[in-house]
Amino acid sequence: MTRLDLHADPVDIACALVDIPSVSGDEAVIAGAVESALGREAHLEVERVGNTVLAMTNLGRPERVVLAGHLDTVPVNENLPLRREGDVLHGLGTVDMKGGDAVFLHLAGTVTEPAHDLTFVFYDCEEVEAARNGLGRIERERPDWLRGDLAIVGEPSNAVIEAGCQGTMRIELRCTGKRAHTARAWMGVNAIHGLAEPLRRLAEYRARDVEIDGLTYREGLQAVRIGGGVAGNVVPDEAVLTVNFRFAPDRTPERAERHLREVFDGFDLSVVDCAAGALPGLSAPAAAGLIEAAGGKAAPKLGWTDVARFAALGMPAVNFGPGDPTLAHTREEHVSATEIRQVAQVLHHFLGK
Amino acid sequence: MTRLDLHADPVDIACALVDIPSVSGDEAVIAGAVESALGREAHLEVERVGNTVLAMTNLGRPERVVLAGHLDTVPVNENLPLRREGDVLHGLGTVDMKGGDAVFLHLAGTVTEPAHDLTFVFYDCEEVEAARNGLGRIERERPDWLRGDLAIVGEPSNAVIEAGCQGTMRIELRCTGKRAHTARAWMGVNAIHGLAEPLRRLAEYRARDVEIDGLTYREGLQAVRIGGGVAGNVVPDEAVLTVNFRFAPDRTPERAERHLREVFDGFDLSVVDCAAGALPGLSAPAAAGLIEAAGGKAAPKLGWTDVARFAALGMPAVNFGPGDPTLAHTREEHVSATEIRQVAQVLHHFLGK
Repeated sequence: MTRLDLHADPVDIACALVDIPSVSGDEAVIAGAVESALGREAHLEVERVGNTVLAMTNLGRPERVVLAGHLDTVPVNENLPLRREGDVLHGLGTVDMKGGDAVFLHLAGTVTEPAHDLTFVFYDCEEVEAARNGLGRIERERPDWLRGDLAIVGEPSNAVIEAGCQGTMRIELRCTGKRAHTARAWMGVNAIHGLAEPLRRLAEYRARDVEIDGLTYREGLQAVRIGGGVAGNVVPDEAVLTVNFRFAPDRTPERAERHLREVFDGFDLSVVDCAAGALPGLSAPAAAGLIEAAGGKAAPKLGWTDVARFAALGMPAVNFGPGDPTLAHTREEHVSATEIRQVAQVLHHFLGK
Repeated sequence: MTRLDLHADPVDIACALVDIPSVSGDEAVIAGAVESALGREAHLEVERVGNTVLAMTNLGRPERVVLAGHLDTVPVNENLPLRREGDVLHGLGTVDMKGGDAVFLHLAGTVTEPAHDLTFVFYDCEEVEAARNGLGRIERERPDWLRGDLAIVGEPSNAVIEAGCQGTMRIELRCTGKRAHTARAWMGVNAIHGLAEPLRRLAEYRARDVEIDGLTYREGLQAVRIGGGVAGNVVPDEAVLTVNFRFAPDRTPERAERHLREVFDGFDLSVVDCAAGALPGLSAPAAAGLIEAAGGKAAPKLGWTDVARFAALGMPAVNFGPGDPTLAHTREEHVSATEIRQVAQVLHHFLGK
């Protein structure tokens, strides 16, 4: 088994993590390596739940910071083992998110006298359906482990603090009609034609830009699926348009739904999937300290991440990790070693005394 | 093997035919019964090609009438064996088109001294893909058998002569875009949104009614399929709308395509499937004689049928058969015995001396 040295350069830790394959559902080996390494640190209380590894300090500090990173990756796509070229690490998981995991493991090993108490959560199954998510399991089974005053999720953010996150909602717009032979079309009602109007409204929709805590969130309303049709000579009696709404965290899911019902007034709309956003919460003291350590800069998080789970628990939560998120899930995933060290340095400054 | 008596009431022949199952591809038994029955008639020359049975008179008449009917049915749907209730025959194939086959078989047996020479074509595989169609096979392999001055196809037409037929064309309208994560939708181009405009034109399209030879054809332009989408969080880069155009026989396929390219000007259009229509041709002498025998009435044929194959050979061609075509392919298929006898009577009057 790979032995991880938490006192090494976080870039070397990242390389070691990348070379332990850990596609979702297959995280036993990497979780074992992480558990062993953390277990060697006397200042940490360590526990394992399935393939999630938990560690914390208990120093009686007034505030607690939770650092969370998932250990799994999407499937291998001709991008293992790791390839190191100068400053750049190429390979599956370099961006999403073993670079961030490496920084957190390095902090767990080296920040033995932190300014705030620390909790580390290295979890499994983030890249698959939400029901299997390891962080969700801890939330249900061991909620005490997630309590704190600030959460930092190490997802790639170009080494910029991304605060809050947008919500996401998927709706289906369903048109019904009446089947008929296309040679006698006037005997039927074409359900696909019925989608013309909702599709027009969608194409003409102008999404909001919303400023919150000095950050600008950009909403979006996008068709993600359309389907309908019975046979090449039949007027179809059903057609469905699926739309994904990414909404700024000033809207609750209820308000987001109400807005969509206004936009698509007159049509049969059902919500099939929803996750609330998270307000940035940058005015909370611990969050303000982190922003300061990072040079005062923060950006809005546009995608939905596990940050929202912490926000739902009432904690300010941010994304902060090395790597360009647009490279995540691509075969060409790669991260700069400089960026990994930069994130480690900011967090050392913030968490150390 | 069922022995068919061509001199019996055509209603009894229809009952016997319905009770010989003959789903497309499985017509050997029914073709055998038809071949035997026709072979017993001294005035006919009979030939079998696969499961298609051909018969003709050679009396040196100045004109020849071709009568064609398919022997196959769509799959059984809890509608066999035949159920006879008073005047009505219930069961698979009663409408499509063993009622018409029975009339033609009855004529083949009883009109021994016809006014015009007669050719009968009882063919297989009409209900499946065009490449397997028995009539198409005869057209390719034994085209002499289809020559004549008028063709009568016995498809159900409510015992009304339906003349000509509309053409049919299927096109695909393809929109392309650029993939992106829906959380950063402005980095992509949504292909489904691109369908809003062609779908609007389609929904607002007003189809023509066209009068030809006193018959009114009703065109139609209908979406028959729509599809697009990559994943619930991805701006899709391709979407396709499939449209079926039913066009009056005054348009050739070339003109129909040109019209659609005008309607959908600016969009990527490709023709995926096309069959020409057939002009009614009611002014030809043999056709005029038939209309007169039927009491002077004719209606336009709106669906595409094998009539168009004869029209393509330069022959006037009509549909004329018992039964309501809207019942075809339904489990509730049924036909009136009176209508079967009525069609037989009109054709006797027209073909006899």
